[in-house]
Amino acid sequence: MDEPASLVARFGPDKPLVMDCGARLAPWQIAYQTYGELNAARSNAVLVCHALTGDQHVANPHPVTGKPGWWETMVGPGRPIDTNRFFVICSNVVGGCMGTTGPASLNPATGKPWGLDFPVVTIRDMVRAQAMLLDHLGIETLFCVVGGSMGGMQVLQWAASYPERVFAAIPIATAAIHSAQNIAFHEVGRQAVMADPDWRNGRYLEEGVKPAKGLAVARMGAHITYLSEKALHRKFGRRLQDRDAPTFSFDADFQVESYLRYQGEAFVERFDANSYLYVTRAMDYFDLAADHGGVLANAFRGTKTRFCVASFTSDWLFPTSGSRAIVHALNAAGASVSFVEIESDKGHDAFLLDEPELFATTGGFLAAAARARGL
Amino acid sequence: MDEPASLVARFGPDKPLVMDCGARLAPWQIAYQTYGELNAARSNAVLVCHALTGDQHVANPHPVTGKPGWWETMVGPGRPIDTNRFFVICSNVVGGCMGTTGPASLNPATGKPWGLDFPVVTIRDMVRAQAMLLDHLGIETLFCVVGGSMGGMQVLQWAASYPERVFAAIPIATAAIHSAQNIAFHEVGRQAVMADPDWRNGRYLEEGVKPAKGLAVARMGAHITYLSEKALHRKFGRRLQDRDAPTFSFDADFQVESYLRYQGEAFVERFDANSYLYVTRAMDYFDLAADHGGVLANAFRGTKTRFCVASFTSDWLFPTSGSRAIVHALNAAGASVSFVEIESDKGHDAFLLDEPELFATTGGFLAAAARARGL
Repeated sequence: MDEPASLVARFGPDKPLVMDCGARLAPWQIAYQTYGELNAARSNAVLVCHALTGDQHVANPHPVTGKPGWWETMVGPGRPIDTNRFFVICSNVVGGCMGTTGPASLNPATGKPWGLDFPVVTIRDMVRAQAMLLDHLGIETLFCVVGGSMGGMQVLQWAASYPERVFAAIPIATAAIHSAQNIAFHEVGRQAVMADPDWRNGRYLEEGVKPAKGLAVARMGAHITYLSEKALHRKFGRRLQDRDAPTFSFDADFQVESYLRYQGEAFVERFDANSYLYVTRAMDYFDLAADHGGVLANAFRGTKTRFCVASFTSDWLFPTSGSRAIVHALNAAGASVSFVEIESDKGHDAFLLDEPELFATTGGFLAAAARARGL
Repeated sequence: MDEPASLVARFGPDKPLVMDCGARLAPWQIAYQTYGELNAARSNAVLVCHALTGDQHVANPHPVTGKPGWWETMVGPGRPIDTNRFFVICSNVVGGCMGTTGPASLNPATGKPWGLDFPVVTIRDMVRAQAMLLDHLGIETLFCVVGGSMGGMQVLQWAASYPERVFAAIPIATAAIHSAQNIAFHEVGRQAVMADPDWRNGRYLEEGVKPAKGLAVARMGAHITYLSEKALHRKFGRRLQDRDAPTFSFDADFQVESYLRYQGEAFVERFDANSYLYVTRAMDYFDLAADHGGVLANAFRGTKTRFCVASFTSDWLFPTSGSRAIVHALNAAGASVSFVEIESDKGHDAFLLDEPELFATTGGFLAAAARARGL
């Protein structure tokens, strides 16, 4: 690969990651990318948090797929998160598979991959790890923390766990609690992985195989939830694949079928099946109010962080109602918050796509926050 | 089993089922149940059409599971489809696995189960088979044809193919066209089955195995689409299973997880994996307008059938928009049609559940139609 490997911060036995499940992970490491320059006051850092299947390659070609970074529409020179002004950091989550310690890493106790012996990760664990990375980088305060979907969960957790370290926060297309329906969809994906005999109870790496079929099925199912009925209708409708009449078979007659199959096959090339189990599980466990006496506003009492919350009309995985619940809690906590529901038919994936209103909203919010911050 | 086996109508080489794919299936058979008495005028027959995973056991205990019939709320003495008044027929669809010829039946050419050599079935094929059953029973005209979901597709196909044989029709929670999103969900289910190595390219029966894990995953994913976010929230929310705190593991921590796992496991006991492929495929191919020059109203021009169309507010698999499209086409065709959108938070499954407004609507419609029919 021509891309430089990611930067990696390594933490020894003296700096374990203390996890919600009770484990103390050590040694461990976190892989990250940076863009732009940290200013002399160290006050212009923006942390971008990635979603379930994302990684640290937010604004550079992906080292495995060669595809553009996953948020190049948002992050780069002259983009809403302007790397000419801001020092952007994006790190791979704990439990991930792109260089940060996860279930595919070696368990120092056995010398073999952790597999399912890796401790179960929470969103708060991911954020703790990012906070230790910032300490390592000598960055006391973030100008902004931003992310969509699971990235938005991390944004909310940052604002709740480290309010003094977050000047501004942008949670997009997210929720403060994972719904029963979303847990259900995740469980189907996990069962698809675990049903694959090549999963080998999570020990597939040692045995030189991969549960590719199971992981592909999981991805196909999840992918439908990232879109909307309208988007699927507009992109594919009932159009047939390279033919005029149905074949009366189980071939991918419809374009939407071959699209999904491709999504499944491409995903397994770049993602570890056990990481998929761990990262979906972290989202399932997310319930920020539960950690604060059942009252979400308590998570933000006294906060000075300024918030910009965004949702999309056709997002049925993280519907606007979830964003409204965040806004109501922030209002109850007396926080500074702006909220926009963006009209889009692209479903949950809209946050990753060309959505001018998202760019205008986040760009405007960041410009105002930068003035307030004296940047 | 204590239940009597279903009635079976057998058709020999002289009466092949002529299928849309070009195949002429012979010999073949159709399994069915009846309830109530056919009157002397043979004018009180009601055909109930079952959904994807249903069967002919609409109002008697299921011979495999022992559970009540799948529509006992609707069909029985004093129920909206009153077996004291009507002669109710329900038959297993072609391609099914409860006694009607399907992929698990023996291929006379080989003496082995058909597997994927079974011809691909369409909704119109299912209806042709039912029409041949009615001929066999000496029933010229149906008083009513009724069904929900895929059953509703058959109702629409009946009204389009045999308008003179249908006095009244009740399509519930259905659509005249299968959407791209619904094709996508079906394709994920099929891929889950086919990913199971015990599927053996469809030859599992010969090899003495069953793709139970793959079929269970397919069922779990589909089951989510039959409910609604609200129903899942009300039934399960984020409640934990027999414990006070999360286990930080991949056990079924949440009640919704163990519920889904149970749904998957129970389903594989009673359903054939290849039938699941065939019946989902039949739904995918359903596009009634396409068979009528692209104009749905053309399917119903000149019809004298009276229609009652019903949908449910929280049904996102077959949303009200699909029922409205049917009603608009019927209006354009000058048909007699009443339409009700029933307020319910139970999702697509509402048509199978205790929904008093559904009972009142269908019961009232049938009573008026019976008067018009002189029953």
